[in-house]
Amino acid sequence: MPDADIVRSIAEERTVARILVRYCNYLDLMELDALAALFTADCVVSYGIGEHLTSRGRTNLRRDLERLWRWQRTSHHLSNIDIEFDGPHSAHARSYVLAWHERADGTTATVYGRYEDRFLRREHDWLIAERTMFMNGHDAGFALALHPTPRRESPAGWQAPDIDA
Amino acid sequence: MPDADIVRSIAEERTVARILVRYCNYLDLMELDALAALFTADCVVSYGIGEHLTSRGRTNLRRDLERLWRWQRTSHHLSNIDIEFDGPHSAHARSYVLAWHERADGTTATVYGRYEDRFLRREHDWLIAERTMFMNGHDAGFALALHPTPRRESPAGWQAPDIDA
Amino acid sequence: MPDADIVRSIAEERTVARILVRYCNYLDLMELDALAALFTADCVVSYGIGEHLTSRGRTNLRRDLERLWRWQRTSHHLSNIDIEFDGPHSAHARSYVLAWHERADGTTATVYGRYEDRFLRREHDWLIAERTMFMNGHDAGFALALHPTPRRESPAGWQAPDIDA
Repeated sequence: MPDADIVRSIAEERTVARILVRYCNYLDLMELDALAALFTADCVVSYGIGEHLTSRGRTNLRRDLERLWRWQRTSHHLSNIDIEFDGPHSAHARSYVLAWHERADGTTATVYGRYEDRFLRREHDWLIAERTMFMNGHDAGFALALHPTPRRESPAGWQAPDIDA
Repeated sequence: MPDADIVRSIAEERTVARILVRYCNYLDLMELDALAALFTADCVVSYGIGEHLTSRGRTNLRRDLERLWRWQRTSHHLSNIDIEFDGPHSAHARSYVLAWHERADGTTATVYGRYEDRFLRREHDWLIAERTMFMNGHDAGFALALHPTPRRESPAGWQAPDIDA
Repeated sequence: MPDADIVRSIAEERTVARILVRYCNYLDLMELDALAALFTADCVVSYGIGEHLTSRGRTNLRRDLERLWRWQRTSHHLSNIDIEFDGPHSAHARSYVLAWHERADGTTATVYGRYEDRFLRREHDWLIAERTMFMNGHDAGFALALHPTPRRESPAGWQAPDIDA
């Protein structure tokens, strides 16, 4: 790849990574207008199983995410960013999120999740067109039916080794 | 932006990100001399509300951070890095930190925080000139009065949706 | 450094960071063939103290990591990536991992760890040649003897300040 193409690819990747990070920031601040502006007008966002956890379109997404106000405080720690471009106007991004939520009574719920995102370039901006959240795991405080991460199962007859933990 | 400027901006951003990460590493190792060298001589660092949680100047910061020895072990996981330059010699960086602390008796305290940093370029080096730590949340084990993250409140009359968790 | 060298160094760094992230992804998916392909054929990987926590060679590593199936679910959140090249074919990478594990009975174990990795460039690919995992800390659910992070101790006679938490 010529250097100029590498530079552009790294700059685009930085832009996409920044959107992933700002989503978390705006969510924890409940700045929902700024958050919604990171998505395409016709975005589809699926946080879990069932239509009540799917938002269709930026306007609905903004309204649906008001449900985060049922928590008193949240903190979304984003990591493991992995971005691949499949053309000048389209990218796939995977990231991990450790999402901590606290209720007004002080009880908490933590989700160990992952976002699988389709980004599209619209004129000058990269925007999230599709987001599906998966759940590697969660603690006892969390009850929503998020999509489970498809983990490969152990082969038939596999025996756990004799190890302490 | 010409490619040469993009390259320089990405390289500068990498330098700033590395300082954020090394702060955490040096703190968990309690290598306080190396940690203090990441700050300007006249830095102002505010971890929480009140003068006893504010350090003025690199020398005081180094001494004040000895208080981390009241923990037996710590682990500071930095993520959500978002850096913006407002000139060739100045940048603002926001990052998230999941800060885990363990006492000698095995009890723990976890903070879900964020750093808002002013970086300045002094000769060849980027240094932290101002740091304010905010707290998205914390678990029951933590008692210091950190600055609360300014989360937008729900509109008057907002009703929580009928949702499980 | 000329711009072309900076570009190449940033592109190499991106490649190495992606391998660190994909290791976590493949581990949480238990895609062990894909995971093993990130290591050199003669890799040495030490997760903890003793030969039973050391894997010598890619084939053994793949087999040894089947022990992760004793957990029902895992989530490895990678952050604090710090990569340094010591030549065109060799790099050292440090990263932090928050590793969450859940047993079939729902009990969990969390490790606050760090990876210290030696990367080598073999033909077109960067691969992990040596990995040592250290443990900044862990919660009560985890029992394996991982390498402790070498934290500097407080000076003799150090007194904890009068502070709340």
